[in-house]
Amino acid sequence: MGLPKDCEVSIRCKFKKGERNLITDVPGVKVGHVTLIDQEKDIHTGVTAILPHTGNLFKNKVLAATSVINGFGKSTGLVQIDELGNIETPIIMTNTFGVGTALNAVTKYMMKENEDIGTTTGTVNCVVTECNDGELNDIRGMHVTEEDVLQAIENCGDVFEEGVAGSGSGMICMGIKGGIGSASRIVPCDGKDYTIGAILMSNFGMSGNLMIDGRRIDTEKVPKSKAEKGSVIIIIGTDLPLNERQLRRVAKRATVALCRTGSFLGNGSGDIAVAFSNTNIMPHYSEKNIIETKMFHDDAIDKIFEATAEVVEEAVVSSIYHAENVKGIRGKEVFALKEFL
Amino acid sequence: MGLPKDCEVSIRCKFKKGERNLITDVPGVKVGHVTLIDQEKDIHTGVTAILPHTGNLFKNKVLAATSVINGFGKSTGLVQIDELGNIETPIIMTNTFGVGTALNAVTKYMMKENEDIGTTTGTVNCVVTECNDGELNDIRGMHVTEEDVLQAIENCGDVFEEGVAGSGSGMICMGIKGGIGSASRIVPCDGKDYTIGAILMSNFGMSGNLMIDGRRIDTEKVPKSKAEKGSVIIIIGTDLPLNERQLRRVAKRATVALCRTGSFLGNGSGDIAVAFSNTNIMPHYSEKNIIETKMFHDDAIDKIFEATAEVVEEAVVSSIYHAENVKGIRGKEVFALKEFL
Amino acid sequence: MGLPKDCEVSIRCKFKKGERNLITDVPGVKVGHVTLIDQEKDIHTGVTAILPHTGNLFKNKVLAATSVINGFGKSTGLVQIDELGNIETPIIMTNTFGVGTALNAVTKYMMKENEDIGTTTGTVNCVVTECNDGELNDIRGMHVTEEDVLQAIENCGDVFEEGVAGSGSGMICMGIKGGIGSASRIVPCDGKDYTIGAILMSNFGMSGNLMIDGRRIDTEKVPKSKAEKGSVIIIIGTDLPLNERQLRRVAKRATVALCRTGSFLGNGSGDIAVAFSNTNIMPHYSEKNIIETKMFHDDAIDKIFEATAEVVEEAVVSSIYHAENVKGIRGKEVFALKEFL
Amino acid sequence: MGLPKDCEVSIRCKFKKGERNLITDVPGVKVGHVTLIDQEKDIHTGVTAILPHTGNLFKNKVLAATSVINGFGKSTGLVQIDELGNIETPIIMTNTFGVGTALNAVTKYMMKENEDIGTTTGTVNCVVTECNDGELNDIRGMHVTEEDVLQAIENCGDVFEEGVAGSGSGMICMGIKGGIGSASRIVPCDGKDYTIGAILMSNFGMSGNLMIDGRRIDTEKVPKSKAEKGSVIIIIGTDLPLNERQLRRVAKRATVALCRTGSFLGNGSGDIAVAFSNTNIMPHYSEKNIIETKMFHDDAIDKIFEATAEVVEEAVVSSIYHAENVKGIRGKEVFALKEFL
Repeated sequence: MGLPKDCEVSIRCKFKKGERNLITDVPGVKVGHVTLIDQEKDIHTGVTAILPHTGNLFKNKVLAATSVINGFGKSTGLVQIDELGNIETPIIMTNTFGVGTALNAVTKYMMKENEDIGTTTGTVNCVVTECNDGELNDIRGMHVTEEDVLQAIENCGDVFEEGVAGSGSGMICMGIKGGIGSASRIVPCDGKDYTIGAILMSNFGMSGNLMIDGRRIDTEKVPKSKAEKGSVIIIIGTDLPLNERQLRRVAKRATVALCRTGSFLGNGSGDIAVAFSNTNIMPHYSEKNIIETKMFHDDAIDKIFEATAEVVEEAVVSSIYHAENVKGIRGKEVFALKEFL
Repeated sequence: MGLPKDCEVSIRCKFKKGERNLITDVPGVKVGHVTLIDQEKDIHTGVTAILPHTGNLFKNKVLAATSVINGFGKSTGLVQIDELGNIETPIIMTNTFGVGTALNAVTKYMMKENEDIGTTTGTVNCVVTECNDGELNDIRGMHVTEEDVLQAIENCGDVFEEGVAGSGSGMICMGIKGGIGSASRIVPCDGKDYTIGAILMSNFGMSGNLMIDGRRIDTEKVPKSKAEKGSVIIIIGTDLPLNERQLRRVAKRATVALCRTGSFLGNGSGDIAVAFSNTNIMPHYSEKNIIETKMFHDDAIDKIFEATAEVVEEAVVSSIYHAENVKGIRGKEVFALKEFL
Repeated sequence: MGLPKDCEVSIRCKFKKGERNLITDVPGVKVGHVTLIDQEKDIHTGVTAILPHTGNLFKNKVLAATSVINGFGKSTGLVQIDELGNIETPIIMTNTFGVGTALNAVTKYMMKENEDIGTTTGTVNCVVTECNDGELNDIRGMHVTEEDVLQAIENCGDVFEEGVAGSGSGMICMGIKGGIGSASRIVPCDGKDYTIGAILMSNFGMSGNLMIDGRRIDTEKVPKSKAEKGSVIIIIGTDLPLNERQLRRVAKRATVALCRTGSFLGNGSGDIAVAFSNTNIMPHYSEKNIIETKMFHDDAIDKIFEATAEVVEEAVVSSIYHAENVKGIRGKEVFALKEFL
Repeated sequence: MGLPKDCEVSIRCKFKKGERNLITDVPGVKVGHVTLIDQEKDIHTGVTAILPHTGNLFKNKVLAATSVINGFGKSTGLVQIDELGNIETPIIMTNTFGVGTALNAVTKYMMKENEDIGTTTGTVNCVVTECNDGELNDIRGMHVTEEDVLQAIENCGDVFEEGVAGSGSGMICMGIKGGIGSASRIVPCDGKDYTIGAILMSNFGMSGNLMIDGRRIDTEKVPKSKAEKGSVIIIIGTDLPLNERQLRRVAKRATVALCRTGSFLGNGSGDIAVAFSNTNIMPHYSEKNIIETKMFHDDAIDKIFEATAEVVEEAVVSSIYHAENVKGIRGKEVFALKEFL
């Protein structure tokens, strides 16, 4: 739902918000969580799954691109997205040490859905992204299971929680509680409305640096951190017919939102954006060599760039707005934004 | 001089400013302008030269790296900086259609200083950067001459003008008058003070989007632009012993400052940053294959990233703070920041 | 004409050659030389121009991409090709110190053809590529003039010389005389014939390393070089509807040909490939935001990759096959391939 | 052992071979296999581990870089290698669907060796590389276990098998049996001998295209493939004090060997090279911000590039030279090189 209308925080809005103000406003995009919280066992983690469309993703790939804003990260699948310009699986977000398990789960899921994988056709490129939630979560315990990942895919729908939910459960952003954030915007092109949406898990930034709409938020009671650590994964989806080069340019604009909310793109932060268009579809099998497709005229692309910056900025703020206080491993207490407003 | 102490605008300062608050606080770095303004002939352009050190740059190259933030730009020399990790000439800033002439001038300058170039050794990689000043300047007239470029190199010294000066003469930033800006910061490392400085020509951003320290500046009387056009060239110099990979990371942090002052990295903007260290020197001739050098521990690099973001942000604001109203070609009027404070 | 049918050298041919076996077999592509040779003044240089199509290139840009195989080079325009995915001017090949002059010439040529450049629209991204011909040519003399560049554009047609011609006049390849080479291949797709062509100036490789179709050529009387120096510029044109990502993949396959003819991609060699499709056109002005275009199914792209490797390999061999002995500056003698067969 | 002295195949050798002619000639580098072959269960896979040095890799990281020659691949850890310029774990090679399991295994191995991971310090970037062995192996069965991966690390030593061994068990190269190959070369610098070594799993190339030392090998009885599929992972290790930029340049030269043995860098091939230097060590913890290190003078780097091309070329040929005939899943028969000599 992004930021509610009359809440204490807001950001400048040039573009109309989508109906739900979530990435699921992009037709076909679905999101699901599995939240793993067990206070006694110091478990504060989870899985979030994003479906770029509801059909067979392997048979009908979505054009895609990535932007590695800062590469201190362990996501899988990025290299092939860049080479082939597409995504062919659900996109998974989880904690750093859940990547192997998620990779196994998605591989099995894809094999089940597609008997040709590993037999008559090649393998499959699973996109699994991660942030380190080890400051709150017992990350060494590796508590994410393959079932959790499959369940998150299963849970995918139009509505999902923000804040402390799914893979965002153990996130810390700018020294306060981070998590899942999402928002959407409508961009009219050639007389038709298109939607651009973002979902992210916010785990970046240094305490004391948070800015909302230009205003510095005083988070004095939070101990100063020495380094900017953590990471942020930003998934941008749209039904705009952008091509791979243009999706890379869009993914790059996620940076704008990070910088405006106070990040200086710290060393220890794996800041990675992935953008896809589910209008431009690449079939796995094609009888024809040459395929009709659509691209955008770059001279008109500024509105998409500005809407991207705006939608990601709102998603960042929404992720902390919806979060709650959390007490995690080793007695670590993290406060929610509302404590500081 | 960056922003004076008691002026109407300021940005958050975590780091101590250098003595002059200019890139020339980095020992050995010098800057020189040639300003070309002729109101009757619609000339509003110029040349700015930066010397990474005062010795023979070809014989003692400085380690360097680039960050192409948005590649709608025509600078020369970037490809070789990235491959070999160094700069071996003065760095020139001028208008887009002055690049060919500047390239010729620097080539001749380098040949004069080095008889081995083009005879007993290879050629030379001249770094010439540019922004389009065609909204104020008769850019089709190609008014920059080789003599202007040589004179700018000749003029290099410790003190230089900001605002409407050198290559900044015809620049427009966020719909108001841009130009040359500079600043510096002191970063203590291992008990010693190091300096990081930036100089830029600001020609980027869309009118109505300017932010200073988070505050939106009302520039209502400026006509709204439809697109973010123009470009910005940012040169970052330091005596910190960063290596090429680390200099690239530093150059990338120039983005932070652009986003914080209101840019969304528009399509039409050639936003390019170049960073060099004049402590890590690569000799052109070496009897030894293996060279002792220094690098930084990445775990301690956050202070350098944050100082970079800060110094570039101040340089952007300083470039518009020092600018004056200008009336240019085709009757175009551009107002200075002070009109809006 | 590439390699004649019954000549002493050949390479393996899997694909049918185009009619002329030149890049100009790609419909619309034209090439022109200006050859500058003056034995007494030690001038051995020139200019070669390539027109991606014969219409207004600025108003109808061709989709394009680059591959910097080894970035010890000073070409201009590459950064913007990669960002925007297109070329909007003739492509110029000349010597390293002719780049500034060629840039000025093309800028003026483009302004003359397009009154909107620098007035009602932005500037223009001129593509000028270079190799260092300083071992044979008085490169310090900077003998290329703006008129030479304009004349090369003027000379563009379907037929052009290979070997010692245009910008290839002073080139040295694998220790023997290099120069201009070209070839073309026919690739059938969806029942229609498409053409892929290449033109290059060969100035790369170390003496003693030349291989033709796997056979090492004994060039014993050539003094051993200590380093692989020089560079090679490879322009690949096609009427296949490849998009920007795919053109980058195609450009990357030029490497195959360099390695097969004996290069190990030496440090001092600026090896750069540029690929364009003149079927996929991007108009400068468009009333619509969204444009219909075509792309290739990557699963069928291997035939294009293999044809690219083959056409560039033939172009390398053709460049030395057509060359003649040359005596250059400082008494330097370079022998043609035929001396060693 | 690379290619034995008097075997039927050889490649041109300019550089002296190391004692074992294996990557383990680089002081400190160790390699271990677990070979998983069960003819009845259609299992033809395995794991190969490479230790860059024998100390604590997390506490003393090796400088490193990657080259994504063709990005149709699913390796993990590459993004962070490029950002931070180092490797901090063993390097694992396995099949595509073994990556998740290997990632889990290495994560646990690293946590066991380092109690600070995930508690007082951050996480760890595990490097797991892969090729698709699904044409011979029941890849859908996911037969690689975490124990196999730990055992491969345990098995690391100075001597290891080539051909059908470890992760190379199910590989196919140029239509014939591929697998593990390795070789080493001595490069003298500043009067001292340094070693450069390579290990690879060869799974690339199209049947009918194999070349050894320029000679085409007739593999007629092998059915022609329509596409170049499979991948190759190349690990290059050295005790030369190269820095991250230089290691990237070295990694890039692996391409030379692929092209010379007949690859055209086909679409479906994930061709990835990783290079590390175990002389340039980056400590995980450092009291000092600034670290003394060494780099190479790029002007002298050609011998390293040429030795790299040579050592990887020998490793490719060695991988097929040592292989045996294999009968795999779905009745697939693959013949060894010796059948065609």
